[in-house]
Amino acid sequence: MSDTIYSNLKQLGGDTVQPRSPEEAELERVQNPQADVAYNVRFTAPEFTSLCPMTGQPDFAHLVIDYVPGQWLVESKSLKLYLTSFRNHGAFHEDCTISIARRLVGFLEPAWLRIGGYWYPRGGIPIDVFWQTGEMPEGVWIPDQGVPPYRGRG
Amino acid sequence: MSDTIYSNLKQLGGDTVQPRSPEEAELERVQNPQADVAYNVRFTAPEFTSLCPMTGQPDFAHLVIDYVPGQWLVESKSLKLYLTSFRNHGAFHEDCTISIARRLVGFLEPAWLRIGGYWYPRGGIPIDVFWQTGEMPEGVWIPDQGVPPYRGRG
Amino acid sequence: MSDTIYSNLKQLGGDTVQPRSPEEAELERVQNPQADVAYNVRFTAPEFTSLCPMTGQPDFAHLVIDYVPGQWLVESKSLKLYLTSFRNHGAFHEDCTISIARRLVGFLEPAWLRIGGYWYPRGGIPIDVFWQTGEMPEGVWIPDQGVPPYRGRG
Amino acid sequence: MSDTIYSNLKQLGGDTVQPRSPEEAELERVQNPQADVAYNVRFTAPEFTSLCPMTGQPDFAHLVIDYVPGQWLVESKSLKLYLTSFRNHGAFHEDCTISIARRLVGFLEPAWLRIGGYWYPRGGIPIDVFWQTGEMPEGVWIPDQGVPPYRGRG
Amino acid sequence: MSDTIYSNLKQLGGDTVQPRSPEEAELERVQNPQADVAYNVRFTAPEFTSLCPMTGQPDFAHLVIDYVPGQWLVESKSLKLYLTSFRNHGAFHEDCTISIARRLVGFLEPAWLRIGGYWYPRGGIPIDVFWQTGEMPEGVWIPDQGVPPYRGRG
Amino acid sequence: MSDTIYSNLKQLGGDTVQPRSPEEAELERVQNPQADVAYNVRFTAPEFTSLCPMTGQPDFAHLVIDYVPGQWLVESKSLKLYLTSFRNHGAFHEDCTISIARRLVGFLEPAWLRIGGYWYPRGGIPIDVFWQTGEMPEGVWIPDQGVPPYRGRG
Amino acid sequence: MSDTIYSNLKQLGGDTVQPRSPEEAELERVQNPQADVAYNVRFTAPEFTSLCPMTGQPDFAHLVIDYVPGQWLVESKSLKLYLTSFRNHGAFHEDCTISIARRLVGFLEPAWLRIGGYWYPRGGIPIDVFWQTGEMPEGVWIPDQGVPPYRGRG
Amino acid sequence: MSDTIYSNLKQLGGDTVQPRSPEEAELERVQNPQADVAYNVRFTAPEFTSLCPMTGQPDFAHLVIDYVPGQWLVESKSLKLYLTSFRNHGAFHEDCTISIARRLVGFLEPAWLRIGGYWYPRGGIPIDVFWQTGEMPEGVWIPDQGVPPYRGRG
Amino acid sequence: MSDTIYSNLKQLGGDTVQPRSPEEAELERVQNPQADVAYNVRFTAPEFTSLCPMTGQPDFAHLVIDYVPGQWLVESKSLKLYLTSFRNHGAFHEDCTISIARRLVGFLEPAWLRIGGYWYPRGGIPIDVFWQTGEMPEGVWIPDQGVPPYRGRG
Amino acid sequence: MSDTIYSNLKQLGGDTVQPRSPEEAELERVQNPQADVAYNVRFTAPEFTSLCPMTGQPDFAHLVIDYVPGQWLVESKSLKLYLTSFRNHGAFHEDCTISIARRLVGFLEPAWLRIGGYWYPRGGIPIDVFWQTGEMPEGVWIPDQGVPPYRGRG
Ligand SMILES: [Ca+2]
Ligand SMILES: [Ca+2]
Ligand SMILES: [Ca+2]
Ligand SMILES: [Ca+2]
Ligand SMILES: [Ca+2]
Ligand SMILES: [Ca+2]
Ligand SMILES: [Ca+2]
Ligand SMILES: [Ca+2]
Ligand SMILES: [Ca+2]
Ligand SMILES: [Ca+2]
Ligand SMILES: [Ca+2]
Ligand SMILES: [Ca+2]
Ligand SMILES: [Ca+2]
Ligand SMILES: [Ca+2]
Ligand SMILES: [Ca+2]
Ligand SMILES: [Ca+2]
Repeated sequence: MSDTIYSNLKQLGGDTVQPRSPEEAELERVQNPQADVAYNVRFTAPEFTSLCPMTGQPDFAHLVIDYVPGQWLVESKSLKLYLTSFRNHGAFHEDCTISIARRLVGFLEPAWLRIGGYWYPRGGIPIDVFWQTGEMPEGVWIPDQGVPPYRGRG
Repeated sequence: MSDTIYSNLKQLGGDTVQPRSPEEAELERVQNPQADVAYNVRFTAPEFTSLCPMTGQPDFAHLVIDYVPGQWLVESKSLKLYLTSFRNHGAFHEDCTISIARRLVGFLEPAWLRIGGYWYPRGGIPIDVFWQTGEMPEGVWIPDQGVPPYRGRG
Repeated sequence: MSDTIYSNLKQLGGDTVQPRSPEEAELERVQNPQADVAYNVRFTAPEFTSLCPMTGQPDFAHLVIDYVPGQWLVESKSLKLYLTSFRNHGAFHEDCTISIARRLVGFLEPAWLRIGGYWYPRGGIPIDVFWQTGEMPEGVWIPDQGVPPYRGRG
Repeated sequence: MSDTIYSNLKQLGGDTVQPRSPEEAELERVQNPQADVAYNVRFTAPEFTSLCPMTGQPDFAHLVIDYVPGQWLVESKSLKLYLTSFRNHGAFHEDCTISIARRLVGFLEPAWLRIGGYWYPRGGIPIDVFWQTGEMPEGVWIPDQGVPPYRGRG
Repeated sequence: MSDTIYSNLKQLGGDTVQPRSPEEAELERVQNPQADVAYNVRFTAPEFTSLCPMTGQPDFAHLVIDYVPGQWLVESKSLKLYLTSFRNHGAFHEDCTISIARRLVGFLEPAWLRIGGYWYPRGGIPIDVFWQTGEMPEGVWIPDQGVPPYRGRG
Repeated sequence: MSDTIYSNLKQLGGDTVQPRSPEEAELERVQNPQADVAYNVRFTAPEFTSLCPMTGQPDFAHLVIDYVPGQWLVESKSLKLYLTSFRNHGAFHEDCTISIARRLVGFLEPAWLRIGGYWYPRGGIPIDVFWQTGEMPEGVWIPDQGVPPYRGRG
Repeated sequence: MSDTIYSNLKQLGGDTVQPRSPEEAELERVQNPQADVAYNVRFTAPEFTSLCPMTGQPDFAHLVIDYVPGQWLVESKSLKLYLTSFRNHGAFHEDCTISIARRLVGFLEPAWLRIGGYWYPRGGIPIDVFWQTGEMPEGVWIPDQGVPPYRGRG
Repeated sequence: MSDTIYSNLKQLGGDTVQPRSPEEAELERVQNPQADVAYNVRFTAPEFTSLCPMTGQPDFAHLVIDYVPGQWLVESKSLKLYLTSFRNHGAFHEDCTISIARRLVGFLEPAWLRIGGYWYPRGGIPIDVFWQTGEMPEGVWIPDQGVPPYRGRG
Repeated sequence: MSDTIYSNLKQLGGDTVQPRSPEEAELERVQNPQADVAYNVRFTAPEFTSLCPMTGQPDFAHLVIDYVPGQWLVESKSLKLYLTSFRNHGAFHEDCTISIARRLVGFLEPAWLRIGGYWYPRGGIPIDVFWQTGEMPEGVWIPDQGVPPYRGRG
Repeated sequence: MSDTIYSNLKQLGGDTVQPRSPEEAELERVQNPQADVAYNVRFTAPEFTSLCPMTGQPDFAHLVIDYVPGQWLVESKSLKLYLTSFRNHGAFHEDCTISIARRLVGFLEPAWLRIGGYWYPRGGIPIDVFWQTGEMPEGVWIPDQGVPPYRGRG
């Protein structure tokens, strides 16, 4: 099986080279086959990890990305490799979350995009970061992300 | 027992032939017996499966469809058979979810319709697809679909 | 103990005769003792059952009814008996849910009413039916019904 | 430790006399120390019980009260004693819930107040009662009460 | 690794002196590296404790703070030390919750801020306190805090 | 498709006649195709209803049946019709639950069987009934039924 | 409908007089119709309340009682009235829970009985009391009571 | 990277050919690198589907397999392909579940193995199938599978 | 109301002096009024806090204590004050948890006792500590503590 | 504050050097201050990540370790650094989980130890690995780890 809109893809189905940094990672995109309607695509990435820029110790986050595609869809394997490329990258929680979203915005030119970054606790206090490109577009359905709150123990 | 608005139905209560493709599947409809009020009907289909168009491997999704009927209600057994007909059909997550919704829109001419496609994770990252035909109709009650977020493990 | 607004009630506290059909069931109402404020009353009825009009087999539903009373409150025991009277009645999910709501609307003349009918799965796919009489009244508090989504197994 | 705004309190920290009826219960109030901002205070009272006015049998409810204080805060121990005073009082669910809220409204003159009364099931059907004094005030944060729906068994 | 916007920080990565009171605690801030977009930062602090000003006995709360930064981000370790400094401070629930929020507002000059204080029950009745600086800013994404309601036992 | 061990079945795949009482209902059985190993089969029946023998009013239960088959498996459609046949049958909770189990024991001659009957509350107090034919057989895996406890409200 | 084993019952189906104390409450029993097998009956009573013997203030508990009947079953309405009779009775948590169980043991002479008393928190710390008459009987199925642990807030 | 114990693997990392039936599927195994200790490996497969042998309609199950390896570990990709090969295979729930387990037992010669098959409801009643090869081995840790019970709706 | 077995109590109902250290805290006990049966008493204390002996920073824990009383019951207010007295005490998690249990063992001479200490995470990894005085006593009912596992985020 | 049993620790409270491999990581231990009683210590590590030895792509796991200390306690910061050192290490799920446990067994010489490795899904199927050093020691309390099962979506 194949699909002509995917004929340019380099990483899907071929040998994968793990990018060593976000800069090295190459996002790929395909034409949106349903570009005449406005819909929302959600990626849930519970396997995100980066490094603390001050101490070099690993940080972990559960990321959820929603976007309303314009002409392009992100190819999901290239997105996974891009997220994996933060493994040895140092960035603060706020900065890291927002910069992932902004790279996607620049590359996909979506009608709308948001990111929720739910970071594992440090010092007993988790940080969550929430950003969207602006008002939700009228008439498009964007459900709550619904991630449960942190409770400590008990 | 019988009901005249159902007298044209072919698949309900008779022998069922499993359609081999979405094209072959025949949706059926009955007149909406409460067509003078605007209400919402929700179908939850946790047993959806199709094939990946690139690799031929099976994909799975949990689908939830909401619609506000106009003159027609979809007959639920024909809907089930239609969904089952994707079993050997290759389609990407975004395309597959949206095309199911659009076929229902064309066939039922509902006042409003939306679909949530909650796909099982591949590469550790599930994709959800959300579409509706436009703004929710004024004064009609459409609750959240409330599907819990994917959490990985732990 | 007694209460004059309840002095006309026939079924509450007396011998109960189980009505054999919705037509035979007699709803009762009392004057709303707080009719000068607009508030919402919710009934949750997880024990609803009726028959399939095509096959005669039992169907089950979890019903939730919200209403903003006008001059009348429904007496809860008569409501229970009315709901129980569907036990041997044949009706499709959509029709049955809406007709319960409409009988209450006609009898109580509420400021506003809605019903959520959460039907047990048939063919692996549950149907939910949602109706309200129109826009939620301004400034009245009507919380989500919050019924969890169907998940299949696992 | 002490606090001058609390110097008039009679029941807090002293001997407590359990009031025998709602009429006998004495609510107390203190000046709102943050009266220049509009915020919401929520009390959750899962230990409410009263009597059925028809049969004299006990009823139970889980109550949640939200209010945006004006010049006064309710003193929490006096609120507890007031709620406890319904122990031998006969009142229907709708009437009882609304009258608690209205007494607080009269005594505290809040900017806004609402009550959710979640009553334990009788005849298999619980009743919930929801009231608020009017539109939520603009720009004040009033979260959902989030009480889970009744499910019967299973 | 280091980062120039953090070069003024005194408490992060160095020896920590536990402040003995909120007055003694020193909040620190860094420049917002993404100040050209409006996003929300959430801190969840399930380890908050203070003293009752009337009896001197400990109180406990689960705090959640959301803010939309302007030019400044709060440094998270200094926030933790500030919250910890209430350990021997006497304050009522309403007063304590609001004053934490107001100190952050004065120090960070955020575009918007809110706090939810979920206090452990006393006398069987927990108090929750909710405040925000005003209407949510248009187009910024601020999810529900989603803390589950208190249920008593059972 | 067919299967010779099923060639005697009368109700599966044919026209179904709803039995009017437990006595009239006909259970069917097929040979156990894996009779040389000891395994457990669990049926979960959340749609059970019968009548109260004193008042004639409907009762509801969630039933879970575990059995270790000997030479026979119960045919699931005939089990469903048998359970449905209690719809107009009067029986107390304890008696009804145990008699269902004993009929299955007599008909299937299983190596072991148990039933959990989780009845909806009456008078605010649900009754659960648990029975098994004796000690769990050694080395056979019988997981907990795991039905959550009844909580009232809140 | 009637049933000869129930012909002696005084409170079920007749007028109910609420007993004013545990001593005044009259438990009733019927012959166990399935006395030749050993099974477990569970009552869940989330509406229990008594008074603190030191302060006279109300206490609340969620009670769960399991018993393996011998010759007698407790009639459930008389059990409800017995539990309700503690409404104005002073007793400590440990004493109250155990004495309920022992009265049932004396009256029913069951093969085995246990009680779990899950008391609402006082001073932030709930007390649970667990008692059984001795080892679980061999081969009888007694599932966990499964009441969730107390969590405070958050 | 590579690993000599994996040098014989044919399907992992190479091109995958989807087997068309369980007979055609080829399981693969590797030497157990920790064969001197007894431990448990659990596979959770929520994406299982087969066909009903009577009607040809799809069935769905959530499968959980535990085994204590002897000399061999199953290679996980070959297990996935084996499970996928049931997609067009007709088998009853009991038979299908047990036969998967027995093929693994024959191929892996494990110290112990069990399977839990949690099938989606048909006719409102799900079937679960549980089998193990015999008593749990002494001193080996095998936790509960903990799959939540089916609840219907509400 | 009073009770002679409580006539020696000093802290209950009188003025409370908060002890400044575990050594200063005075536990109190009363005679076990049901000393002729063996039952379990559980205290759940979600408000425990102490200090880290190395850094002086606060630690938090959710504690659950089960004990089977002999001749003595611990008076619950004195237990609360004892637990509160760790507020300014430095102790490691393992040491602190075990020493609380051992003091109770020495003071109460129970038939059996256990403690579960569920500590809030530090460095992303919570520690739980579990101790009991020995084998559970035969025939006494000691349910699981059932505290949910820590999940990080997502 | 200090504690003589901790005087040899090198990594706690000092500068931390992140070890680059498991071999390089140095575990540290302190004398067990409660070595005369047998208790269980549980570490929950939801932030574990390693690499696939075949493809080099990251794997994620949620690890739970229980051990009954002998003469030694593991110092928790050194444990965290050891677990973090797998970040760039290639190992299969089964091998990796067991080898972590065995290194702890060799270093701590505990009375008993177990590990649960709950790996994130690959190919839609998560693997869990469970090992313990042998039978649970008599009379020591080791609760279930209670990690919820993987559910896919919906
Ligand atoms: Ca907590
Ligand atoms: Ca919503
Ligand atoms: Ca809402
Ligand atoms: Ca599933
Ligand atoms: Ca149910
Ligand atoms: Ca929301
Ligand atoms: Ca309760
Ligand atoms: Ca179990
Ligand atoms: Ca409650
Ligand atoms: Ca808590
Ligand atoms: Ca277990
Ligand atoms: Ca239900
Ligand atoms: Ca258990
Ligand atoms: Ca996680
Ligand atoms: Ca257990
Ligand atoms: Ca699902």
